[in-house]
Amino acid sequence: MSIINPEDVLKEIGLELPETAKPVGSYTLAVKTGNLVFVSGQLPFSQGRLKFKGKVGKEVSLEEGCKAAETCALNILSAVKWLISDLRKVSRVVQLVGYINSSEEFTDQSKVLNCASNLFKKVFGEKGVHSRVAVGVNTLPLNAPLELSAIFEVK
Amino acid sequence: MSIINPEDVLKEIGLELPETAKPVGSYTLAVKTGNLVFVSGQLPFSQGRLKFKGKVGKEVSLEEGCKAAETCALNILSAVKWLISDLRKVSRVVQLVGYINSSEEFTDQSKVLNCASNLFKKVFGEKGVHSRVAVGVNTLPLNAPLELSAIFEVK
Amino acid sequence: MSIINPEDVLKEIGLELPETAKPVGSYTLAVKTGNLVFVSGQLPFSQGRLKFKGKVGKEVSLEEGCKAAETCALNILSAVKWLISDLRKVSRVVQLVGYINSSEEFTDQSKVLNCASNLFKKVFGEKGVHSRVAVGVNTLPLNAPLELSAIFEVK
Repeated sequence: MSIINPEDVLKEIGLELPETAKPVGSYTLAVKTGNLVFVSGQLPFSQGRLKFKGKVGKEVSLEEGCKAAETCALNILSAVKWLISDLRKVSRVVQLVGYINSSEEFTDQSKVLNCASNLFKKVFGEKGVHSRVAVGVNTLPLNAPLELSAIFEVK
Repeated sequence: MSIINPEDVLKEIGLELPETAKPVGSYTLAVKTGNLVFVSGQLPFSQGRLKFKGKVGKEVSLEEGCKAAETCALNILSAVKWLISDLRKVSRVVQLVGYINSSEEFTDQSKVLNCASNLFKKVFGEKGVHSRVAVGVNTLPLNAPLELSAIFEVK
Repeated sequence: MSIINPEDVLKEIGLELPETAKPVGSYTLAVKTGNLVFVSGQLPFSQGRLKFKGKVGKEVSLEEGCKAAETCALNILSAVKWLISDLRKVSRVVQLVGYINSSEEFTDQSKVLNCASNLFKKVFGEKGVHSRVAVGVNTLPLNAPLELSAIFEVK
């Protein structure tokens, strides 16, 4: 286990893990198989409501999209913690996939994702450096500006 | 292995595994690596033809999209059975990813996917509870209303 | 290890591995976890610039899209080699996911991906036969015509 607790790093940079929405029904927040944790697609929910709505490049600016990506990343961390109890067990952020609700002209999906990628690096150091997929889509559940899923390796 | 055979559950609810399209060429229906089976994206083919065509929220209703999701889920199960011979070897449905061919205004991608998620839960019980990603896209192969890929853990 | 070196096969068919862009910052080209390598989404960059730009079915033809898919596949192979040093260690191409920047009417995403799938089969033989997901999207980073990510199993 790391000596540094990722949750302490979050506190230092003024962030905290949001509460996870109670998973109900036929799917759940995250599933562990072997050493891998597959996290469900997370929307930028903060305190029970979507932080932004609409397409990046239209109703949502690049800066707002980036902030929303950080919120999704926090929700991903909450989901991982919900499943494995302690973020110190994370040994690697393996992959981040970002679907950005985009106007047809918007082509800066990578920049939107950077706020999520940078958060993982800050929180986990080199273990937070991940592979990444950034794509545009024409719409998302609840008209969210983006949705992020992730795969973590844990001990 | 489960005592209950997932195929018996399917029969009880009036469903059956479709025949799998013969895989040819440079890609295939599903690939096993370690304990994981990665299933190729499945379209709502039933008896050799697409059950519905077009965008959900436009040519295809939410209800039809949900039915199509169940058909995709059956095709996923067929692909898994084709690879591992016996669905009783499934130890967990790890992840379901759904790409919904959506009109720009359609934001109920999650509801469309529920018919697939619910089928996995019915067929595998708690082992069928999975992580999930639901996104909208502006078009799909053959103008299918949705495409589902999945990852299964097997013994 | 294979007796045949995948790089020799590439040379025989007149192709070569491009140089990989130096990974910097909080994400990287590819990450290894256990026996799996997750490769980041690759755009059709060739010698530092995008081979084609725009939507397949509009600014980019099916044939150009297919050529671009082969370029992405080469970039994927470069990323894998960068991580594991020797492509002879590849024991299976597990999955290829292709996001095709598509006009609303374009529904031949599968045909676009074939040039990537066929390359993997040529280079790795039966070990190159993979599971596959092909979807359309309304836009991509830098207005690339497609983006491909992949999972490889390595020894």
